[in-house]
This record gives sequence, structure tokens and C-alpha cells, in this order.
Amino acid sequence: MKKTSMLGKQYHKTRQTTLDLCAPLSPEDYVVQPIEDVSPPKWHLGHTTWFFENFILANEPDYQLFNTDFNYFFNSYYESQGERILRTNRGNMTRPTIDEIKAYRQHVDEHMEQFFAKYTEVPQDLFYVIDVGIQHEKQHQELLVTDLKYILGGNPLFPVYQPNGTHHSTPFAKTAHYLPVKEGLYSIGYQGEGFHYDNETGKHQVFLHAYQVMDRLITNEEYLEFIAAGGYENFEPWLADGWDWVNKNGVKAPYYWFEQNGEWFNYTLHGFSKVDPHAPVTHVSFYEADAFAKWKGKRLPTEFEWEVACNQYVPKIPENANLLEGGHFVPLSRNNNEYQMFGEVWEWTNSAYLPYPYYQKAEGGLGEYNGKFMVNQMVLKGGSCATPKDQIRSTYRNFFQADKRWQFTGIRLAESL
Amino acid sequence: MKKTSMLGKQYHKTRQTTLDLCAPLSPEDYVVQPIEDVSPPKWHLGHTTWFFENFILANEPDYQLFNTDFNYFFNSYYESQGERILRTNRGNMTRPTIDEIKAYRQHVDEHMEQFFAKYTEVPQDLFYVIDVGIQHEKQHQELLVTDLKYILGGNPLFPVYQPNGTHHSTPFAKTAHYLPVKEGLYSIGYQGEGFHYDNETGKHQVFLHAYQVMDRLITNEEYLEFIAAGGYENFEPWLADGWDWVNKNGVKAPYYWFEQNGEWFNYTLHGFSKVDPHAPVTHVSFYEADAFAKWKGKRLPTEFEWEVACNQYVPKIPENANLLEGGHFVPLSRNNNEYQMFGEVWEWTNSAYLPYPYYQKAEGGLGEYNGKFMVNQMVLKGGSCATPKDQIRSTYRNFFQADKRWQFTGIRLAESL
Amino acid sequence: MKKTSMLGKQYHKTRQTTLDLCAPLSPEDYVVQPIEDVSPPKWHLGHTTWFFENFILANEPDYQLFNTDFNYFFNSYYESQGERILRTNRGNMTRPTIDEIKAYRQHVDEHMEQFFAKYTEVPQDLFYVIDVGIQHEKQHQELLVTDLKYILGGNPLFPVYQPNGTHHSTPFAKTAHYLPVKEGLYSIGYQGEGFHYDNETGKHQVFLHAYQVMDRLITNEEYLEFIAAGGYENFEPWLADGWDWVNKNGVKAPYYWFEQNGEWFNYTLHGFSKVDPHAPVTHVSFYEADAFAKWKGKRLPTEFEWEVACNQYVPKIPENANLLEGGHFVPLSRNNNEYQMFGEVWEWTNSAYLPYPYYQKAEGGLGEYNGKFMVNQMVLKGGSCATPKDQIRSTYRNFFQADKRWQFTGIRLAESL
Amino acid sequence: MKKTSMLGKQYHKTRQTTLDLCAPLSPEDYVVQPIEDVSPPKWHLGHTTWFFENFILANEPDYQLFNTDFNYFFNSYYESQGERILRTNRGNMTRPTIDEIKAYRQHVDEHMEQFFAKYTEVPQDLFYVIDVGIQHEKQHQELLVTDLKYILGGNPLFPVYQPNGTHHSTPFAKTAHYLPVKEGLYSIGYQGEGFHYDNETGKHQVFLHAYQVMDRLITNEEYLEFIAAGGYENFEPWLADGWDWVNKNGVKAPYYWFEQNGEWFNYTLHGFSKVDPHAPVTHVSFYEADAFAKWKGKRLPTEFEWEVACNQYVPKIPENANLLEGGHFVPLSRNNNEYQMFGEVWEWTNSAYLPYPYYQKAEGGLGEYNGKFMVNQMVLKGGSCATPKDQIRSTYRNFFQADKRWQFTGIRLAESL
Repeated sequence: MKKTSMLGKQYHKTRQTTLDLCAPLSPEDYVVQPIEDVSPPKWHLGHTTWFFENFILANEPDYQLFNTDFNYFFNSYYESQGERILRTNRGNMTRPTIDEIKAYRQHVDEHMEQFFAKYTEVPQDLFYVIDVGIQHEKQHQELLVTDLKYILGGNPLFPVYQPNGTHHSTPFAKTAHYLPVKEGLYSIGYQGEGFHYDNETGKHQVFLHAYQVMDRLITNEEYLEFIAAGGYENFEPWLADGWDWVNKNGVKAPYYWFEQNGEWFNYTLHGFSKVDPHAPVTHVSFYEADAFAKWKGKRLPTEFEWEVACNQYVPKIPENANLLEGGHFVPLSRNNNEYQMFGEVWEWTNSAYLPYPYYQKAEGGLGEYNGKFMVNQMVLKGGSCATPKDQIRSTYRNFFQADKRWQFTGIRLAESL
Repeated sequence: MKKTSMLGKQYHKTRQTTLDLCAPLSPEDYVVQPIEDVSPPKWHLGHTTWFFENFILANEPDYQLFNTDFNYFFNSYYESQGERILRTNRGNMTRPTIDEIKAYRQHVDEHMEQFFAKYTEVPQDLFYVIDVGIQHEKQHQELLVTDLKYILGGNPLFPVYQPNGTHHSTPFAKTAHYLPVKEGLYSIGYQGEGFHYDNETGKHQVFLHAYQVMDRLITNEEYLEFIAAGGYENFEPWLADGWDWVNKNGVKAPYYWFEQNGEWFNYTLHGFSKVDPHAPVTHVSFYEADAFAKWKGKRLPTEFEWEVACNQYVPKIPENANLLEGGHFVPLSRNNNEYQMFGEVWEWTNSAYLPYPYYQKAEGGLGEYNGKFMVNQMVLKGGSCATPKDQIRSTYRNFFQADKRWQFTGIRLAESL
Repeated sequence: MKKTSMLGKQYHKTRQTTLDLCAPLSPEDYVVQPIEDVSPPKWHLGHTTWFFENFILANEPDYQLFNTDFNYFFNSYYESQGERILRTNRGNMTRPTIDEIKAYRQHVDEHMEQFFAKYTEVPQDLFYVIDVGIQHEKQHQELLVTDLKYILGGNPLFPVYQPNGTHHSTPFAKTAHYLPVKEGLYSIGYQGEGFHYDNETGKHQVFLHAYQVMDRLITNEEYLEFIAAGGYENFEPWLADGWDWVNKNGVKAPYYWFEQNGEWFNYTLHGFSKVDPHAPVTHVSFYEADAFAKWKGKRLPTEFEWEVACNQYVPKIPENANLLEGGHFVPLSRNNNEYQMFGEVWEWTNSAYLPYPYYQKAEGGLGEYNGKFMVNQMVLKGGSCATPKDQIRSTYRNFFQADKRWQFTGIRLAESL
Repeated sequence: MKKTSMLGKQYHKTRQTTLDLCAPLSPEDYVVQPIEDVSPPKWHLGHTTWFFENFILANEPDYQLFNTDFNYFFNSYYESQGERILRTNRGNMTRPTIDEIKAYRQHVDEHMEQFFAKYTEVPQDLFYVIDVGIQHEKQHQELLVTDLKYILGGNPLFPVYQPNGTHHSTPFAKTAHYLPVKEGLYSIGYQGEGFHYDNETGKHQVFLHAYQVMDRLITNEEYLEFIAAGGYENFEPWLADGWDWVNKNGVKAPYYWFEQNGEWFNYTLHGFSKVDPHAPVTHVSFYEADAFAKWKGKRLPTEFEWEVACNQYVPKIPENANLLEGGHFVPLSRNNNEYQMFGEVWEWTNSAYLPYPYYQKAEGGLGEYNGKFMVNQMVLKGGSCATPKDQIRSTYRNFFQADKRWQFTGIRLAESL
């Protein structure tokens, strides 16, 4: 168990990283919400701060709320924590300004420092809540990156977020290799003592028939073959909901892709450029991932198959896994990260997001964190180039609706043996 | 394997039952489509007929299509079978008239009779398709009943469909008993030689931790307690999507329920009447079933838990199971059907509708039957008072979106041990 | 002032005509409402009957309502007359059946007969209401024809409503001639003693600058030139709302027109056929009429210009005006009806539907007849091939929203001098 | 005709006023578009600049566009001027930043200065376009004020835009007096040599029957009586479209009004405060204005009645008319401005926005300024507290859809004599 000093350190580092990620933004970039899923960057800054004020400081004697209106502004979906601003309305709130929100952050950070100074050892229950708050802010760091990509990428000027250090993509042998796993009973779910969410606990056993998963992610080059073969024009490999989605939205390629004179370009946080053939395909929906797999005569792995294969073949996060800290903000070619199970892109599984057998949601406000979303979503595994390293582990369960594409999402194939 | 004569017999019986179910309708009742889910009765009559014409007779030498336009009219969702009328537009088609469709049925039935007369033994592949066609028509019989209930139940005159033989509901001891199942590896999926769908094959093994399921369905009386306790006004037990659904639609009770002066009434196919306290609650969405279970401190069973418990406790369909053939068209109190696992109401499970490990979709047009719907839906088990007896078995997987309520859907509780 | 006997006669004739217009329908055709504007034919039958029951018979001592639910069913938009069925829901009501509605008609007709028998002279106020009821039913006869055209014309089988007596269209000299009117003060509005609506009273004076109107309607041939010249692809002649409407709805031609291999066909109540070049164009929106006029370098007349020109050049309805009684149900070429000011197609004017200077809406329920619609609509003049002869006069003001096309609507050009 | 030096002076003054109006804004306030009608303030700054660059400078030899992308960004609705950003998408564009747009303004202003320096007398046609550009920017000043009111007023913090100089509202005798006008032929439309729009030319004659208009605007106090009398709960005085609008949107009061413990408050640009009883009611739709008038047994004047009464009773703009230059940004009580025909609030008339008899739209891009909006809108007269003084005159025709409320709109009653 972490000591107070370590917790305080981690708190400050996490808080600073959030601000660092915002450095390239102009004040205007903080405000808008082009689609409901994408929150304004300034909302992320306020909401992560509100978490600590609301769940920690507000319970401290003598603490004065920075601004009583901010509770209303920066509550996201916690019904138990009182009224909140309509999610669809976040992007219309020009006030508080980014300067006011930065003052709010500073205020809360100072009081958190006083809080840490008060204790040599933080009480267990508060320790837990602060730990959740830190992890929560790391989750929002990933959302911050994907949301600002959406905001900038929807602008015809295609502003550059990260000007330096473009990645080096190199070709590699394309032949697919597979990683086999034997039939048997396997343990699923988190079982250590470190931080983890309620949705990954309830360690339990799952029986798996023999299967194998591809030893890398699907590349843009392979996905371009799918497009060239009429992948978006033939109903055959698509789920019915997916085919409706394609036709209703006129989908012709992954999100952020643009065709010009027969060539495919895309927007990345490095700007507008040709699609990199060797990099993993990303910004695809579950529907596209599933259709691609079927077109290949394969299928997506279940979340259990993914977790077991990961535990077996990549028992710990490789040094060179492409995660947030790398500062690439774009998935890289395989040469940088063998097997590519951690980082790069979130991998759609064919598992619906449902509770584990012994799932119990946490008490109080934090109980709304995960459990209430367990319907109509699919599980994703492995983290992406925007995921903080501390955040990811083989048992981590991410979840999104099948049509979502604004996250860094990608494809790994599997098959039964 | 059934012989031709048996197949022919079954064909004719099935076709006649469909017509019998329509006997109480006036020509006007056949036409409308009040919501997208509900097809006009005359569409069911035409579509089930089209199945045999399109997949069997159209391949016979010398057969002339009854009317070439009918292919366009009565194709439902088979992309591979050519253009079709938009689903949302079915309810605007006043022609062909019901008389023309009955002539179409008769024409096809006559040619099917010639077809049966031709063979002493129907070739395996055609046998299979006809068998699917018969089962398909049985599925549509259930839809016919639920769709006409929706049509009549939305009319302020509340027309009676079934005037005679109202059921006798009797009280019974309310104390909940549970049926325990031991931890272990269990076989799931169809393994006999009778008719079954591709989605229930791929017999495989599933490991279950110890659990138990309630020995009966939840009653209207119990559900009324949930309402009285503010079930629809407190977000706590609801999934987030469910709580949105409640608020967006102003849901306050199961579908077909109406409050008058503090008392609850409902529309059944016997007309407008007080809610029967001892009958199983029905016309609830997955959201309501799940919220009710959580409010009770329990959960819904998975489809695997349901199937294993059913195999163990109700290995065959009881004589008095309340299914379509009983002609009740309303779920009955427990006294009529111990355990109530077959018939009465479809039981929502907490399993998403997904492929079994070795799932392979059928070749050709019939491959569109099940597989392409495997996303965004939940599995239901056990059949309802509108399900034909031949149709149901413990491995049968029904599936609907979490918000659907026009089917006879209900609740059974479960818990881990 | 009409005597009772004349009124009774007119009542019966009108009621019979409504039934005659329904003769070609099958029961299914009576039920549906493909768009909100189009009411189910059986609703027209019930609503026109309800008018007499509600406003006349219900006030008679001893009269028993045929069915108390019918008031709820067949009230259209009279807020003062109690609750009513949602307009968008009319097409889901399969009951009462058409047979029940016909019984309702007969019941009311019999009691109206008793009513007429009671009086040698009907009291002034009741006389007026009955007169409105008769005119109201005539208005619904026109809607009945246009609504059933919409119902049948949206069916891919293109059912024929009127099999006999197709019209003879003959070419004529196309050169446009204009009918000039001098600058001056003109009287507008109804000033006789016959039946008329509140919206055409308040006779008043309007000053008109010199102008002229075309001496006939725009033909299909002329409209085809507009299409061929890219009329629907060039924003120039369109109002902004019109251009949005074109693009949002993918409009490429008048409603009921279909292009096949470069040729234009249309659905008429005689069936599917090639577009008749010499007949007036019809089923165009105000937006199309206005854009066509501007493309020609002209404009539409105002309602005042139309009325004054009509009074001057066509002081009474010509014998051969193509109105409902002719039974053509399709506009005919000019040779049949010089000037074409009465019948054929309703002529869009460039006047918004607004009150005349001294406009007073009628007292009570009938006050909701016209006045409350005086915003967001345009005035049309002259009647169509579906308008009963008694219904139309030069002062009659019809009105529809600018995008409506299911009525027989057409174009006459004008210009200032 | 104005000389170059005067034109240049007016240009610079106008451009400066636009910037002055933005002084109280933070960068975040410039970005958002909470509803389609409300453009982001930075869009106004760019678009008014684009007007001069696109219609004047772009035609100058040697002029280099500041940024070729800006044409795409800042074109509003001129179809003839090339592609443009979707109106609904304006509020998602965080770039160009406000600093870049201010640089754009400066760039264009400098080149306009060079342009003015080049000519002692600007050619007639260019003079006209610049004049339009200046007037156009003044129109956008008014929109800027109303749009930023909408942005700030939708924020629960209710930010203050104008902290100083709140107005002094004083009671006055409430008895309504009317200004009579005699029956006769009147000239309508602009006939001088000053600036005016194409939609107010075509001076022509209109015959008016005798009438009178109220000698002041309807106050909040009077409107509160309408609310208290159940004005929003009784269908009687409402147009059908208006009644639908009330119910669909749950309208209970003018926009920006809030009820707290039985008292009415409103947001003004001075912040949140109690409704001022003596000030004119504002932010009402045409529907509300019309319903209020009918509830009072009166009606709204036509645009012609308004114009003639204004010419007769208020032949020139009074010194103390409350217009933009006053810096109040809120309508004031009658004592400040007898008759209140200029400034305060735009007055809804009962005239639809339609062309005058001899209306000809301007050639080229400027032809899209007014003419194409002549359908589905109502005319408003007199200007508001946000209208620049140069902008308004008795012939000026403003126009909005009947449901619009974000402008300063109000009510004057009229009646026929």
C-alpha cells in the first residue's frame, strides 16, 4: 500500500500531466462540444478537480467550496451528487473561463497539499477515494486527447497539436502469425493488491475452448484492401445494425480519413498526412472491426480470450509499449512493439460489457462509476497511445457503444481451433 | 427424420393455424403498423407465404410466381433476396388486399401440395428449408399475436380479441423458493436431431459458479410493490440507459397498464380489466426487469444459468405449460404451471445475444436469419403464452433490444451462491 | 335564403356524393395515414358525420349519441369541442370499422331527416350551421380525393381509382397571352348573400398597380423545360427555404412524377402513364411555383390580383370548368376550359394567408374554422379538378404551407405593367 | 452622395464600434453557437470583414487574400460566393482564434484605408457596395448584441455584460391612448437618396381603411396580467401554430424570464434582476404578440399601418430614442421616449414578409441579401435598443420567423375604426 508521500507525489504528477496535455491549446479550443461524446477540454479540467473537491475536501472541516456553482457545472453523471448541467449543454458554457478554472485547480491543489501534510498516513477509505480520483484523472487524460483530436480534426484548417517528433513507420513481414491457447479453465479478473475498478473484480473462472489470436494488430494497409474490395458496399460481412449504420451515415472509411484523387489521407495530431500503411488501423467502430474480421474469415476475440492470451504471451507491459507517456499520440508500426497488446489502439472484443458473476457495485457515489453502464456496450482491451501507463493492465475493461469511433480503437483477429 | 407425409401434414396444420389466429380480425385490422416493430397482420400472412414461394417453389421448373410484385412486398430483411419495401412503410400499403393475400396463400399452398405429392422422400436440403419455413411461420404466429395486441390495445375502444374462456387466477403462497445449481462445467446448446436454429448449435461447455434461480415468475402483485415504492422515480436500481429510457418516455408501469383513480388496469386480449395480482408481470423491458431485480437485491440469470437450471428442473415441457395452443393469450398464475419455465412470458436474461464459440452462419439467404442480429440485443428464454409448442425448447434463444415491450416478456430472479 | 326542403335535398346529395367517391375503395384503403396531412378515408366519413351530430343533433332533445367514443375519434382540431385523437395517430385506428362508420352515417342521416321533417323553416342559426356542415363535407370530398390519391399513389402497384373515361388531351398554341388589369382601387371579398366563410368577408378596398396575368395555366411541357434546364440544380430562382426544401428532400420533379430511362411518367387516378404535355402541371409546391415563375422572369399574382382579374375576365364559372362533378380527377388541357381560372388546379398566389381588415372570427366552435390558421401559409385560388362546384367562387381563399404538394396545385404567371 | 472622406470615416467608426461591443467578452465567449440562429461572436467579426475583402479588396489588383481558407469560413449564405461552412457547424470551429481574426480585421482595414486613399471619389458602384458593407456591419452589431445575450443568458452564472449605468424605470399613467389614421391612399417604401435596401424600394401606393395604433408599447406589467390570467393555458387567443409552439416547448413566459417563488425575474445584459414593470415587454415571439393582442380584443398593425402612423406621428427619430448608441442594451420605460416607435424593441406586425409590387432584387451576390427570404417570415418595424441609429428608418423592414425570440421583440396594439 502506498504511503501518503507517494500518494501526494502521484497526485501532483497526475495533475501536472493534465495541464501539460493542454499546453498546445488556445483558449477557444477549450470550449466546444461538437458531439455529445466529446466534452470541452475545460470541462475535463474542471470535472477532475471537482472530483477531489466533492469527494475529499468538501468533507474536511473548515474547507470552503471555491465556488458553489461549480458543483453544478462539473458533476458529470453522478445522480447521487445532485443536479448537474445537461451533458449536451456543456459546449455552450463559455463561463467559467479557462483562467477561472485554472484558479479552481490551483485552489484545490493547494488544499489537497494541506490535506496530505495533515496525515502521515491517510485513512484507508480516503486513500481509496484519492486513488480513484487519480485514476479517474488519468482516464480523463485519455479522453482529453481524443476529444481535442475530434475538435481540431473537425476543423478544415486541421491544426497541428504535436508538431515535433513524428513517428518512424517501417514495413514488416505481413504474414499473419497466431498465438494459440489451449482449452481449459482460466481465472479471469483482477487479483492483486494494486488499484483496480469494481468491474474487473470478482475473480472467477471461465472455460475456454481452444483458440488463437493474431500476434499483432490489423494495419492500415490491410484495411485499405478491405475498402478496395468493396467492404463498405457489400452487406455480407456486416451485422444488421452495422449495415444500417454504414448506410445512414454514408460511412466509407475509418473516421478522420479523407479521399483525395484516389488516395487516402488522414488527420492525426501531427496534422494532415497520407495514411501510413504499416501503422495499425484506428478510429474504427465495433461494426467495422467485426465486418473486417468476417471478411477475413475470422472473428474478434472475446474479452476472456484476449485476457488469457495476454496473460500468457505478454505478462507485463513492454518497455516500448506506445502509451500516453511516449508522447506520440498516434499508433505506430509493429516493429516498435511486438504483439502490440498494450498501447497503440484499444482492441474491440466480441464481448458485451456485462457484470462478472460476483460483481458488487461500490457503495455511495462511486458506485455509479461502472456498473450502471453494463448494457448496450462492447468491451475493449489493451489501452491505446493515449492511455496513461498506470491505467492499463490485462484485466482492465474499457467499454463503448458499437458505433463509437472517436477513441483510438482497432482490430485484432482470432479464431477457434 | 420426418417423412414427407409428416412434413406435409405439419405444413398444412401450421398454415391453417395462422389463418385461425386471424379469424377475429376485421379487414381494417390487417393493415396498420403503429410502430416499426409491429408489422401489419396482412404482412405476416404474405411474408410467411413468400418464404415458401421464394425459397422452394421459385426453384421448381414450370412454377409461375403468383405476382412478381409480391416478392418486393413480402421480403422482410433478406438483403440477398433482392430489393424490398422499407420496413417503416409496410403500414401504408393498402394493397394487395387481404383477399388477394389469401388467394396468394391458397395458390402457394396448392403448389406446395403438388410439391409434396411429387416426392415420397423430400431431398434433405429442401426438407431443411421447408422445415425452416414451418418454424418461421410459427415464429410469425407469435409475432402476429403480439402485433395485433399492439394494434388493438392502442385503440381507445380496446377491442376484445378473445371473448371466451377467461382464465382463472388463484392466489398462492408468495414466499420465494429458489432452485440451486452446483458449480461446474455444463454443456450448452442444442445436441439432438430435431429442428433447431444455427444460433443454438455449436454445443460447447460453459463453467458456472454455484447459483440459484427463483422457482416461479415475478407476479403483478410483486411488481405493483415496486411501483408503489417509487421504483420509477428513484435512479438507484436502474442502468443508465434504462433511467434515460424511463425519463424520455415517461414510463410509469408495464406497457398496456393504465392507472385510473389510483387503481391499475390493463389491456389484455380479453379486453380491458383490472391487473390480475397473481399472474406473472408482462410487457416489461429488460431495463425494468433488471431494475426490479436490483431493487430486490437480486439479479437476472444469464442465459447459461437459465438453460442449465431448466435442463435440471424442467427437463421437458409440462403438459399444462401455457403456450399458444392453449388459446389463453395471457399469462396465468403459478398454480397452472409449476416453475413456469416454459410458456407464460419470455424471461429476460442478463446475457447479450452473441455467437456461441463454434457458431457458423448458414449458407445463402437463410444465413441472414439469426447471425446478423448478434449485437445490441439481450437473450430471452422459455417462450410465452403466444409461442407455439413446437417452437420452444431449453436451448431456444430469443433476442430483443433492451427497451422492447410489445412481446410477452417477464422476470425471474437469480443470485450467486 | 334556401328553404328547408332545398337544404335537406342538398344535405342528402352531399352525403351521397361522399359515399360515391368511396365506391372504388377496398376496406383496407380506408385505414391508413401515410403522412400527417393525409387522413384515412374512413376518418373523413366519420368526421363529416360527427360535424352534424355534434353541432346539430347533440343539441336536440332526446337525441342519443350513436357512440360516445366517436366524439373523441372524429373531432379534428376543435379545441373547444373537447379532447380528440392525436392527428398523427389517426392512421393507427383500425376500429371503428368502415361498416360501423357507415352505420354511424346512416344513423345521423336518419336523424337529420327527422330534423328536417320537424321544421318548415329551419331557424336562421341552425340553418347556418347545417350550411357550414354541407360546405365542410364538400371540402372533405376534395381532401378525400387527394388523400386517397396519396394512399394509392404511394403503393408500387399503382392501383387505378377511375378506370373509365380517360381524358383527351390536345395540343394548342403555346404562345403566352396575358390579361391586363388597370391600376385602381378594387373591392375584395365576398358581398352576396350566398354561403361563404368568415375569412372572405369584410369586403374592403385594395389598391392595385397595373398588372397582367397569363390567360392559362402552365403546362407539363413548359415545366419539363424547367427541369431540363436544370431548374432543380441551380439555386438562383429559389427562395432560401425552397432551396433547403429541394436539397433536404432530394426533390427533382412534381410529386407523383417518376423518371424511367430518361422519360417522365406520373401516377394519376387513372393509373401510371406518361406525363401529358398539354395538361397543366400539378402537385407542385409554392416553392416550385415561385421558382418556375422567377426562372421565366415573371412572378406569381397576389391573391388580390387573381381575384380582380377573375372578376373581370371570368365573372362566372364556365360550364366546362373541370371540377369534381366532371369525374375526371385529373387536370385537362386548355382546350377544355378557356382561361382555366376555375377548376383544374389550385393556383398558388404570392399572398400569405392573413386576415382581411375587418375580419372577425365566428363565435363558438366554428370560430376555429379559419382564423387560427392565419400564419405561415400561402393563399391559393380557383379550385381544382377535385373541388365541388358549389364550393368555389372568386373570393374563396384556400391556404396551405409552402411545401405542400398532395393537393392539385399549379401555376399561373403574372407581371407588373 | 457622401464623399470618400466621409465614407472612410464612417467605415472606420463602424469597424471600431464592432470591436467596442466585444470589449467585455472573454476569448471563450466568442466561440459558441448554442442554437442555429445565434452565431459565435468571432464569426460576426470575421464575416463582416470577409464582406469587404470578398466584395471590394478581392477585385483590387495586387491584393492578396489574408488567408484563402477564410472565404470558406466566413461566407454566410451567399450561394453565389462559393462553398461555405455549414451554418450549424459554426460553433464547433475553435480556429481561427480570436487573435487571428483580429489580425484579419486589421489587415483588411489597412487595405481599405489604402483603397480610400487611392480615390478622391469612389466610383458609384463600389461606393454602393462599401455602403452596403457598412450597413451590413451595423446589422451584425445588433446580432452581436442579441447573440451574446443569448450565450451569456443561457449560462447559470448569468454573467454581467454591462455593469454600469443601469436604467431608471419610472411609472407612468397606464391608460392606453391611440393614434388615429384616416382612410386613404398612402405611399409606402423608401423614396429618398440615402442608403436603403432593395426590399424597401419600389415606392408604391397602398389603400388603408381608417385605423389607430396605440401610442406606446405594451409593458411588462401588462404582459404579467396576461400570464396571470392564464394566457399560456387557454388556447382561445392563439393561432394554431402558436398553440402548438407553446405546448411543444412548454412556453410559460417571454424568453429570459424565470419564476422564483411566485415572482418573475429576467436576465438582461445588466445581469439577473426582477422584471421591470414599466419597461416594454421584450423577447416575445410573433405568436405571443398576436395572442396578447387578441386577448386584449385588439390586433397587431400591418407593416403599412405602422409605417404610415410613424410617418405621421414620429416623422424623425427622436433624440432620446433608445438605440444601440445609448449603451443601455435594455428597453426603457415610456417616459424616456414618447410613442416609442423608434428603438426599444422591434414591433411585430401582422404582415408577412413579401415583395413590394415593383420589387427587383439586386444583381450579383448582393441580390441574395433580402429577396430570397421572402416567405414564412413576419415583418417587424422600428428598431430596438440594440439597433444602430443609422440603420433604422420608418421604411426599414426587418423580418423573422414567427417563433423567434432572441431579438429584442415587442408589442404595439392596433384596431380598425
